[in-house]
Amino acid sequence: MKNLEDYIVTVPDFPKPGILFRDVTGILESADAFQLALDLIVGILARTEFDLVASPDSRGFIFGSAVADRFRKAFVPMRKPGKLPRRTIFEEYDLEYGRAQLHMHDDAVRPGQRVVVVDDLLATGGTAAAAARLVERKGGVVVKMIFPLELAGFDARRRLLAGYDVASLVSYPGK
Amino acid sequence: MKNLEDYIVTVPDFPKPGILFRDVTGILESADAFQLALDLIVGILARTEFDLVASPDSRGFIFGSAVADRFRKAFVPMRKPGKLPRRTIFEEYDLEYGRAQLHMHDDAVRPGQRVVVVDDLLATGGTAAAAARLVERKGGVVVKMIFPLELAGFDARRRLLAGYDVASLVSYPGK
Repeated sequence: MKNLEDYIVTVPDFPKPGILFRDVTGILESADAFQLALDLIVGILARTEFDLVASPDSRGFIFGSAVADRFRKAFVPMRKPGKLPRRTIFEEYDLEYGRAQLHMHDDAVRPGQRVVVVDDLLATGGTAAAAARLVERKGGVVVKMIFPLELAGFDARRRLLAGYDVASLVSYPGK
Repeated sequence: MKNLEDYIVTVPDFPKPGILFRDVTGILESADAFQLALDLIVGILARTEFDLVASPDSRGFIFGSAVADRFRKAFVPMRKPGKLPRRTIFEEYDLEYGRAQLHMHDDAVRPGQRVVVVDDLLATGGTAAAAARLVERKGGVVVKMIFPLELAGFDARRRLLAGYDVASLVSYPGK
């Protein structure tokens, strides 16, 4: 039986020279690998009580919505500016050049709700930390963060995501 | 029991004046409504043999990946230019102003594979028709197209999507 990492294609120089891109679409484009990834996430969440799954667009949507469905929970999409039609709150986070905004509907999380944040890839943790702040500003609690892929060289668990319960399925030592 | 349409919020003047935006996030942000939508899609596909689910980003990802998981199938993401890391093929389609590209990994569909296209909203059908052409260029067959919401006033079923097997969960008569 193949492991999950066997389905991850490493693409050199994408999206620009010098970057080794870890391509999660190889997991999606195999039924066996997609099932394996979701089964592993279900196992990680087996003893976690939660109300909602929240994910940043757009690859985060792919894993987050299926996890929400597996547990029969609601799904909260977090998006770039101008994409969500109702009233939103937003947080800013650093990109390599400049800053970006992550928006969430103002009524998507209620006080006391327990939220699992799911995204496809953990690098610096900037997006996930912004997602957590959105949840917390509405009185929610982030009970777990789950990423199919992790680039551990960015040290997100000890830096931007310190204090959160973080899990990944495949972790690469570099950046 | 509420119907699925009870969860769809109509937002006037989004993303610009004069547009009545039908907001599918109200379905996602309720666990009951999200389950109802997915159960209805499962019912539509109950007698359909297929190999893959393909969806355009990014709201399409939310429904498409959960449907792929329900049937234990692979999921093919279709994306804007520059987002997919490996070799892609693309199709162009009309927007209100100008044209857009929809890309798919060149190896995502193999000849003879049966594909269900899932997106959140059917309006003109331009995106879905581009998705179908991508599948067909690789020798795949689009066996069903499913949309939680349909704006029937655009007449996509008789125009751009003529000849395809199209289903929606909630249909509005206007545009």
